[in-house]
Amino acid sequence: MASPVDFYFDFSSPYGYLGAELIEGVAERQNREIIWRPYLMGVLFKKLGTQPLVFDPTKGAYARRDIVRTAAYLDIPYITPDPFPVASIAACRAFYWLTDKDPALAKSFAITLMRGFYRENRNLSKPEVVVAAAVDVGIDQAEITAALKEAAVKERLRDEVNAVLDRGVFGSPYFIVDDETFWGTDRVEQLEKWLATGGW
Amino acid sequence: MASPVDFYFDFSSPYGYLGAELIEGVAERQNREIIWRPYLMGVLFKKLGTQPLVFDPTKGAYARRDIVRTAAYLDIPYITPDPFPVASIAACRAFYWLTDKDPALAKSFAITLMRGFYRENRNLSKPEVVVAAAVDVGIDQAEITAALKEAAVKERLRDEVNAVLDRGVFGSPYFIVDDETFWGTDRVEQLEKWLATGGW
Repeated sequence: MASPVDFYFDFSSPYGYLGAELIEGVAERQNREIIWRPYLMGVLFKKLGTQPLVFDPTKGAYARRDIVRTAAYLDIPYITPDPFPVASIAACRAFYWLTDKDPALAKSFAITLMRGFYRENRNLSKPEVVVAAAVDVGIDQAEITAALKEAAVKERLRDEVNAVLDRGVFGSPYFIVDDETFWGTDRVEQLEKWLATGGW
Repeated sequence: MASPVDFYFDFSSPYGYLGAELIEGVAERQNREIIWRPYLMGVLFKKLGTQPLVFDPTKGAYARRDIVRTAAYLDIPYITPDPFPVASIAACRAFYWLTDKDPALAKSFAITLMRGFYRENRNLSKPEVVVAAAVDVGIDQAEITAALKEAAVKERLRDEVNAVLDRGVFGSPYFIVDDETFWGTDRVEQLEKWLATGGW
């Protein structure tokens, strides 16, 4: 059995969104399982004393332009959300609650939520937007609304984020397969060749 | 007349070397002039209070691996030089002295010098290595040796580096055409499409 690919991202990372749009095509062509692992880059920034790339005084303006240009280059619809960036805690909590029931459904939820944010400016930091995306993929509204308030669901996310940071993950999108690491939308091509050839 | 592409890099940047190996192929296919503009990233790091990526405690180990893997992916010979990184002041001074006489010859010199460093571990921080690369492309040894000591040649580099930083350049390789900016070996593909299509 070929190892699955771990896919790390933040819901509030545009490059993470582009990665999410690309990675399941790779999975299908290379017949490889992808395990989606959203996390909170804000926790990482706090730990490192850094900030989101788009706020970087040197690279921020470039990054804002590069995101728009790269999305168009990849032929993936994208508008810059406003406000941006936003907190993705509710999105992550919903994702892990869902993936424990049905990983494929959790991916559909994640893509639905990100498309709402990056194509239609629906602010994914709002619990009602998260709930609506879950309802869109067939989840009961009362059930997901209650889940978001559960202590166990909050605890689940804390554990996940700690595990992600313990693994040394520092970007979005960020992929690991067999201890080989690929960081960035622009490394998805290399990742695909790695899966296709067995590496080099 | 289509605008030329400004190509910024540091001789001691492996990604800059990969960019140098790729960019003249783009120039030929797209019939576009490339103006090579090496600079000293060390001056930038000092200004920003940052350091070379390979020393970054979070991303350094990844970067070291990514450079090797990306070179192989692009089918460009590469060995990690030792010592690395090194100072590229003599290399830059020689380059600007040469490019004022003959830009094409200066590019040949730059590629010869970088291939020596990144393929055969010839330390390009050493003036004798710089001189040898110049001699390899047909420059008189006494003439280049003398040029490296001239005050005007040193001043020329200072002015160039200041102009590069004033333009907001922060990486290697880094390309600008018609005020559109492309940062990284992994953006050369986008740059080529930009030149081929007129942009988007």
